[in-house]
Amino acid sequence: QYSSGVRKVTLIPGHGIGPEITVAVQKIFEAAKVPIAWDEVDVTAVRGPDGKFGIPQKAIDSVNANKIGLKGPLMTPVGKGYRSLNLALRKEFDLYANVRPCKSLEGIKTLYDNVDVVTIRENTEGEYSGIEHEIVDGVVQSIKLITEEASKRVAEFAFQFAKDNNRKKVTAVHKANIMRMSDGLFLRCCREMATKYSEIKFEERYLDTVCLNMVQDPSKFDVLVMPNLYGDIMSDMCSGLVGGLGLTPSGNIGKNGALFESVHGTAPTIAGKDLANPTALLLSAVMMLRYMKLNEHADKVQNACFNVLREGKVLTGDLGGKSKCSEYTQEIIKNLK
Amino acid sequence: QYSSGVRKVTLIPGHGIGPEITVAVQKIFEAAKVPIAWDEVDVTAVRGPDGKFGIPQKAIDSVNANKIGLKGPLMTPVGKGYRSLNLALRKEFDLYANVRPCKSLEGIKTLYDNVDVVTIRENTEGEYSGIEHEIVDGVVQSIKLITEEASKRVAEFAFQFAKDNNRKKVTAVHKANIMRMSDGLFLRCCREMATKYSEIKFEERYLDTVCLNMVQDPSKFDVLVMPNLYGDIMSDMCSGLVGGLGLTPSGNIGKNGALFESVHGTAPTIAGKDLANPTALLLSAVMMLRYMKLNEHADKVQNACFNVLREGKVLTGDLGGKSKCSEYTQEIIKNLK
Ligand SMILES: CC(C)[C@H](C(=O)O)[C@@H](O)C(=O)O
Ligand SMILES: CC(C)[C@H](C(=O)O)[C@@H](O)C(=O)O
Repeated sequence: QYSSGVRKVTLIPGHGIGPEITVAVQKIFEAAKVPIAWDEVDVTAVRGPDGKFGIPQKAIDSVNANKIGLKGPLMTPVGKGYRSLNLALRKEFDLYANVRPCKSLEGIKTLYDNVDVVTIRENTEGEYSGIEHEIVDGVVQSIKLITEEASKRVAEFAFQFAKDNNRKKVTAVHKANIMRMSDGLFLRCCREMATKYSEIKFEERYLDTVCLNMVQDPSKFDVLVMPNLYGDIMSDMCSGLVGGLGLTPSGNIGKNGALFESVHGTAPTIAGKDLANPTALLLSAVMMLRYMKLNEHADKVQNACFNVLREGKVLTGDLGGKSKCSEYTQEIIKNLK
Repeated sequence: QYSSGVRKVTLIPGHGIGPEITVAVQKIFEAAKVPIAWDEVDVTAVRGPDGKFGIPQKAIDSVNANKIGLKGPLMTPVGKGYRSLNLALRKEFDLYANVRPCKSLEGIKTLYDNVDVVTIRENTEGEYSGIEHEIVDGVVQSIKLITEEASKRVAEFAFQFAKDNNRKKVTAVHKANIMRMSDGLFLRCCREMATKYSEIKFEERYLDTVCLNMVQDPSKFDVLVMPNLYGDIMSDMCSGLVGGLGLTPSGNIGKNGALFESVHGTAPTIAGKDLANPTALLLSAVMMLRYMKLNEHADKVQNACFNVLREGKVLTGDLGGKSKCSEYTQEIIKNLK
């Protein structure tokens, strides 16, 4: 059913520049004859019957029905009672593995030209447990929660990902020298999983050491797996090495669904002006196509996008170009073969 | 008393390459007529009357008496009951602020040539609290502890450091969008301190964003202040930008004492072979001289070291040279004016 027929995909355009980059992706997919029907929903938080703000039921129902979604950047309103919608979505659908590939792109000049790493981030617990207390005045504890269940499944995901994508090595990133029990548990789960994937090389490295080595020689790394917060940091850092969040995709994968997303912000100052760069959302959508086993369509769109970046004639302002979002979109469409 | 007379300084040569790089520093200081008498102690863990391993009392007494120390790399034996000696020292002497400057060095080629940042790391709590529990089988919590007291004093330290060193800006690095209470408290303490140092610019940034921006353009940053774990990561990353832990100094500062250290490892494979690079320990010792207000001696030693690095003729193997530690040391001594 994946590779034939039209599949429904939940589409969450999001806020700020979200709608215009979403339109860009839709146009490119249409031109590439991607067999997808979009089910567009709004996830702007609404006040529920309990008085709390949350994701609208209609959006939840759509993702639950389609089991797959694409989303643009979301704004988190400031104030008490609001929590990040991004986090709420990960939680709601138990999207336990966050996959963020960062690969040097031809035509995008950075200080590095040999980056090809994939951060696999545990996406449901760790420092993101949300459990915090003020013990006494001026003394706060936040709880980092590590479970065997979540650690095992993300470790398995990482090794399986490596295998499926012909990757050679998985590095577990940790601070088990400091958090001996929590990161220790995470690390043990990775070690155990490593024994089941003997064709994949396994190594374990301290987070600080990985940060140091990554900026000196990213080619030392391949697939990286780590607890939630470390993944947040490492994926942004790696994204910086290849050009930033405007260019790097992200996918949140669960047992019963997956949500692909651009990780950059809503860029309110340029919203609505046809100036935004849709590449991160487009490459996230390409990741989604591969997840749906629509590999031919994925290749087609990706190649067109990479061609335009490589040629460097029609680029958006953030990449030093002068073109509008719509012009960049048209140029990619021209390049579809 | 600081700028005249001879002061006693506790010297902890440490393990592996520690002794030989320590001798290098001693020789250079002697040649530079630095008015210091070394009080050498060993901190190799010993079993106390309670059966636990700990720092020998003689070493503790020495630091308590001298209130200032220089230490080489320490090895943490593997196994239950041992904790990092580095951490034990920070704790024992309540060395609450860890200062790690990273500046691009002439003669040391990296991808970056415009790095000049100082990481100020809270050094006593946060994710390093050491409090962890296994709640039920396979469910572990580690506690990140943030207190107003520790946050305030490190914030104050950062602003005062910026002021004393003619720095323009302090950036508080946090994830208060996720750890609203703990990082929120840390951030509030920084904000409050900022109002007392109106001549210093203050900004707050997410940790992930700082990682991304740092690898793209380190010149965006000046002094950075942050909770313990973030500082561990950020300082290693910044060190990587300028050439690695073999070149960057570190100082742990408390109310009643300070301990300066090289942060690299013990490098057991080259230990005893006169191959080690003493630069990180030497520059840490230079930081120590400034802390002791021996600025002229600090300048003299630092300039000699920078000259040798700039000329690039007498370098140790890790920097692509062919010289021995002792030859590099002699070359620095020749350059003392
Ligand atoms: C927006 C924020 C809550 C989020 C995170 O911290 O996970 C973001 O940084 C990310 O990486 O998706
Ligand atoms: C050795 C280790 C315990 C230590 C730390 O995590 O603080 C080190 O990485 C450092 O930065 O001094």
